[in-house]
Amino acid sequence: MNNLVKNIAEKSRNDFPLFNGDINKNLIYLDHAATSQKPKQVIDSLKKYYSFQNANVHRGAHQLSALATEKFENSRKLTANFINSKNEKEIIFTRNATEAINLVAYTWGNYELQENDEILISLMEHHSNIVPWQLIAKAKKCKLIYINIDKNGELDFDDFKKKLSDKTKIVSLVHVSNTLGCCNPIEEISSLAHQKGSLVLLDACQSLAHKQVDIKKLGIDFLAGSSHKLCGPTGIGFLWGREEILKKIPPFLGGGEMINEVFKDNSTWAELPHKFEAGTPAIGEAIGMGTALQYLQSIGLNEIHNYEKELTKYLFEKLEEIDDLKILGPSPLIQPDRGPLATFYIKGIHSNDVAELLDNSNIYIRSGHHCCQPLHRFYGIKSTARASLSFTSTPSEIDSLAEELKSVISFLKKNS
Amino acid sequence: MNNLVKNIAEKSRNDFPLFNGDINKNLIYLDHAATSQKPKQVIDSLKKYYSFQNANVHRGAHQLSALATEKFENSRKLTANFINSKNEKEIIFTRNATEAINLVAYTWGNYELQENDEILISLMEHHSNIVPWQLIAKAKKCKLIYINIDKNGELDFDDFKKKLSDKTKIVSLVHVSNTLGCCNPIEEISSLAHQKGSLVLLDACQSLAHKQVDIKKLGIDFLAGSSHKLCGPTGIGFLWGREEILKKIPPFLGGGEMINEVFKDNSTWAELPHKFEAGTPAIGEAIGMGTALQYLQSIGLNEIHNYEKELTKYLFEKLEEIDDLKILGPSPLIQPDRGPLATFYIKGIHSNDVAELLDNSNIYIRSGHHCCQPLHRFYGIKSTARASLSFTSTPSEIDSLAEELKSVISFLKKNS
Repeated sequence: MNNLVKNIAEKSRNDFPLFNGDINKNLIYLDHAATSQKPKQVIDSLKKYYSFQNANVHRGAHQLSALATEKFENSRKLTANFINSKNEKEIIFTRNATEAINLVAYTWGNYELQENDEILISLMEHHSNIVPWQLIAKAKKCKLIYINIDKNGELDFDDFKKKLSDKTKIVSLVHVSNTLGCCNPIEEISSLAHQKGSLVLLDACQSLAHKQVDIKKLGIDFLAGSSHKLCGPTGIGFLWGREEILKKIPPFLGGGEMINEVFKDNSTWAELPHKFEAGTPAIGEAIGMGTALQYLQSIGLNEIHNYEKELTKYLFEKLEEIDDLKILGPSPLIQPDRGPLATFYIKGIHSNDVAELLDNSNIYIRSGHHCCQPLHRFYGIKSTARASLSFTSTPSEIDSLAEELKSVISFLKKNS
Repeated sequence: MNNLVKNIAEKSRNDFPLFNGDINKNLIYLDHAATSQKPKQVIDSLKKYYSFQNANVHRGAHQLSALATEKFENSRKLTANFINSKNEKEIIFTRNATEAINLVAYTWGNYELQENDEILISLMEHHSNIVPWQLIAKAKKCKLIYINIDKNGELDFDDFKKKLSDKTKIVSLVHVSNTLGCCNPIEEISSLAHQKGSLVLLDACQSLAHKQVDIKKLGIDFLAGSSHKLCGPTGIGFLWGREEILKKIPPFLGGGEMINEVFKDNSTWAELPHKFEAGTPAIGEAIGMGTALQYLQSIGLNEIHNYEKELTKYLFEKLEEIDDLKILGPSPLIQPDRGPLATFYIKGIHSNDVAELLDNSNIYIRSGHHCCQPLHRFYGIKSTARASLSFTSTPSEIDSLAEELKSVISFLKKNS
């Protein structure tokens, strides 16, 4: 692994001010699944935009507006390219992945769903892929059905096949779970769903920064992604949807940019993608996301995936050495392509206490329900701790985590 | 005016990289109503956040998350303070003002509106304050009613009084029109609307950067604002709403952050303001907006308003000297508190041609329908040109505009 470390983590860490600044030079950031850190390339592109390229887009006759529009629309192309869509009209910029899923639930859901139709999700979904479906299911009198988790902490594929039916209108699933870390078999799921006439929406928040995600290969219909988990700025995410679906469903928010003509009593809509982008978009942030995607591609998504796979194996090895620590989700031995994170708990110890004590040693992990309350309820636990990696993570960070964890657990046991 | 210029425009221009950079050093940016330029203070705060303070908010046990949360929530306080709300729970961060208006239309509208209820807007509204009401009016079988424009290019107040009735459930109006530039008498409107039991929503996009806007004095119920028109980043705006109203209406987007508990079949909602903020918010951008608001306050909103009033008078004087040029909206002699912009047209000449030729001389104005098609239809014109000012604008920029306009018009007349 040493060579890989040298090539990927050590080299890329130089790009991240947080890992090289005066503040907290020795911090160990293991919360990449909550949000990624930002390389200087992204920060510089924001600075450049706001200093010298800032103007409102699409509606201006002047050079500055033309330049901002060109850069903004180029980011749309970069985003399409990143997931292997050849058609940038299929990229709708949103605030975050949550808004992307809500957009589908509000528009496609209102347009397409009928009473007694079924929406199929899983018990491991993030709240962002549960609550929008609860809301539309209630409004349209549909059924929201959950696929179970199997004993390895993976999606129960047999249960999926049992619950998929002619009544299923959409299967909305996470690609890589933010808690279990498992990677779901989307190709097979899409194929079976389409045989039943159902669409497939993929929440790709935890996969896009870690492996090549190819919408054509996966055979999906919608994909939700978030810039801030991809080394890009906050305030921007995207929905990818197949053009023929996006074309027929009604718009979401109303306002400028998304119209063709506005009369007193009615309006007509702009062409894709603008039909779904009301008001001044997050111009600077879209441009920053484009830079982030280019940055990830310059390192190489396959290279990142291979490195993180090794690192995840190492993380599991070190955590499994710790007494009484239980990890949720499949081990890398069962599922080598799983996501680079480990969610764990220690019986009798609150995960918040673990995270707070680690924080004293400058090790930053997350604790809580990770926006997955139904999953935690399924396991009968309220809260877990989660260490999540990126291509900037190193084996020595994992060593420090494991060492500190041991002493934190021993301290908490003594004082409980 | 010379002293004022020295104190406000000349001093503040040093803060703006665009006016001091190597690129386009001589540009004359007169498109502030479309988007404001950004001072280095705002750009630096973005850089600092993304370099050294970036983490996901609200859910983290570690220092970095606590720091990001503190800065993010402090921006909410700064935003509340900026419009004289003492209650930061009343500030909902949105992508832009358009989303803020849609949030009210989707949530309050769905909750409160009944068949045959009336929504009162005006003919001068931006599409963002028309289309959301068209959509909800159609869904709930309500009437959308337009207040007329009077002969001065101001809101026809008598027509407002005539159209306001017991059936009116909301009056949704622009504060300062982005096309006419007129400032509407919101205090009187709120008072009369409330007597009829109607709420008042204010689109303050074109006033917030130019004068002190005080929600208490105006007596309104909702206010929509946009960061990018306030020297702040794109990707962030806000809705202010009275707490008792926001409390009772249902949430908008579903997902993380906005829930209290998520069960398989239903969820309960977080307290204000989080109930309306699903998913990872625009953290860096909210912080940037906070810095922008502090920057505007450091110059002084009253100082800005007084300076821009003088400058607007000068703009009108110079434009009125030009043959065949007609300005829409009230002159500063009729309405001294009007907004700092002039929208105009020249008979027989397309405003796009005017804007494009001015662009050749590095003068950046806007042309088109300014997202106000119903207003343009009312005047029987398809397109106008608009020069819009800020506190960084100078009399000499106006001189250049007037001079170039004369030669552009003369050229276009000869070649038509």
